Amino acid sequence: MRVSDVGEIGAHGRIQRALRRDPRELLGYGDDAVAIPLGDWGTLIAHTDVLVGSRDVVEGMAPFDIGWKAAVMNLSDVIAKGAAPLTLLFSWGIPGDYELEALAEIASGMDAAARECETFVTGGDTSEADDLILAGTCLGLAKGGRIIGRRGAKPGDILASTGPFGLTSVAFKIALEGLEAPGRVRDRALQAIRRPIPRFREGMAIAELGSASAGMDCSDGLAKSIHWLSRMSGVGFEISSIPIPGEVLEFAELHGLDPYELALYGGGEEYELLYCIRPGLWEETAEAVEGVGGRLEVLGRATEGGLALRIDGASKPIEDRGWEHFKGWGRGGREQGRRP
Amino acid sequence: MRVSDVGEIGAHGRIQRALRRDPRELLGYGDDAVAIPLGDWGTLIAHTDVLVGSRDVVEGMAPFDIGWKAAVMNLSDVIAKGAAPLTLLFSWGIPGDYELEALAEIASGMDAAARECETFVTGGDTSEADDLILAGTCLGLAKGGRIIGRRGAKPGDILASTGPFGLTSVAFKIALEGLEAPGRVRDRALQAIRRPIPRFREGMAIAELGSASAGMDCSDGLAKSIHWLSRMSGVGFEISSIPIPGEVLEFAELHGLDPYELALYGGGEEYELLYCIRPGLWEETAEAVEGVGGRLEVLGRATEGGLALRIDGASKPIEDRGWEHFKGWGRGGREQGRRP
Repeated sequence: MRVSDVGEIGAHGRIQRALRRDPRELLGYGDDAVAIPLGDWGTLIAHTDVLVGSRDVVEGMAPFDIGWKAAVMNLSDVIAKGAAPLTLLFSWGIPGDYELEALAEIASGMDAAARECETFVTGGDTSEADDLILAGTCLGLAKGGRIIGRRGAKPGDILASTGPFGLTSVAFKIALEGLEAPGRVRDRALQAIRRPIPRFREGMAIAELGSASAGMDCSDGLAKSIHWLSRMSGVGFEISSIPIPGEVLEFAELHGLDPYELALYGGGEEYELLYCIRPGLWEETAEAVEGVGGRLEVLGRATEGGLALRIDGASKPIEDRGWEHFKGWGRGGREQGRRP
Repeated sequence: MRVSDVGEIGAHGRIQRALRRDPRELLGYGDDAVAIPLGDWGTLIAHTDVLVGSRDVVEGMAPFDIGWKAAVMNLSDVIAKGAAPLTLLFSWGIPGDYELEALAEIASGMDAAARECETFVTGGDTSEADDLILAGTCLGLAKGGRIIGRRGAKPGDILASTGPFGLTSVAFKIALEGLEAPGRVRDRALQAIRRPIPRFREGMAIAELGSASAGMDCSDGLAKSIHWLSRMSGVGFEISSIPIPGEVLEFAELHGLDPYELALYGGGEEYELLYCIRPGLWEETAEAVEGVGGRLEVLGRATEGGLALRIDGASKPIEDRGWEHFKGWGRGGREQGRRP
């Protein structure tokens, strides 16, 4: 049996079964970060994520963008847990013929993204490799025991995001499938994959209030993220609205595509944070996020069970599909994908 | 200018110059870990190191060995700093056609090495890549402010190691250059590169005593490590003895090689810890290490300046050479090496 036969989740599961479990760790298997209590000092959060040049770099990304994105991939998950980033480290795999100045620009991109989140890139290691590999680790500290995991949502909680969905989906259709788009649509979509915004201030405001029962970033795509929260918390969701930017609607109309399909299943690499907010603290939370210059968009509510999209009177199931390493797009599909 | 023109140290320097410096971080550039004070709780140590399949895996290493080694590479540096390993994370890059059971064995190897050091592998991420990439991050906690860096050695300090040198050097000559060796020599040498021993108990005993003024592991080779300690601490060293196993002496004699050359310059990937011990605490330290089943071998003394090997009445300089990524063996050499 090969890794490509079971996909990323299958491979991850097989690795996990070979590892003994640390009894002190708080989040457990199925979450994407590690949480270790440090007594009065709070909870240490650690997350690791790797950017692979031949797989994750879209044509037109400058070295600065590559570094920025590799940093955001790591920062975002720590922020989603309600932890303030403490530091960022990178193990670099570098081809010998790589331009030295391009390396420096990658580092500047990492540095800039880290400073956006009030932290620094402090450490690393460099090795020779055939492909560009940027394996990051972000550490964060959550004050007290208030970490935000994937478990914990309760029926009635409000599902909300820090921003809209679908732009990365449009960008992949432009960059990988060669679809046409008006200049403004193209620019905004490509910007979304080149320089994703880490939702640091929003994440810190929500962590401070302690109003989120569960949360995560949407780097695997919106539909997959909703399924993760549902599965890990044992709740359903009724989605009544999905925030979709005008550029995505325009692109969908131009190509006869379903904008909800683009927003739910097509993208991934979106770093909006998705939270389940306790209803009694909703007003306060929305105001706190506005207070730091952000905005919370309501998608729907957690329910006793079932995952449904109810928009304009029609109801559709939300499927558990999106991008998965080793499998490509689609659920259980074997269309080996190279994205991008 | 390309990375191969400046080598690993040059590339590292260029990256560092592009990064703003975290004023809280304690070890600074030139050390290989990051230290962040957590108040009364102690000091958080983080180190990241990557194993690249096509570069770092020698023929004959089983998947379990690969995982073990990737873990030790990361554990060792944290232990050398005087910190108890807190947790270990890995970002995996995996070729799609990799065997699932081999992945599980790699994970078992990581797990076994982590448990040797009383910690766990708690987190990770998997991505598709053309080569096997195991990018690890080890976190550790040093109680109080007592971290052991590369700076801090004083003239008069005793330079000592937790074990002998030269076995990995012999192993590379066997595995990469095809040199012959008697079975027993071969077995011990190959074991040294397949299953390096993390010096956890020794490291914790020395950290507990607080008797080391500086220290590091010898993964870059003995001569390079001595040069690092010298440069960062502003001291010299007079080396009067190098512990070399009988198997290395036998192999050297068989092939007309200089055993000191093998021990100082040829190997790397040795995970013995090298410490500068305050002379007044020497007896106590040696006893403490013996108390946990280890042994400290005296190499020499820190001096006001100069690096010399004085053995059998003859004196030779110690050169700053060994393995360097992108450069291969030798100082400033351009023999692009693929090791292994």
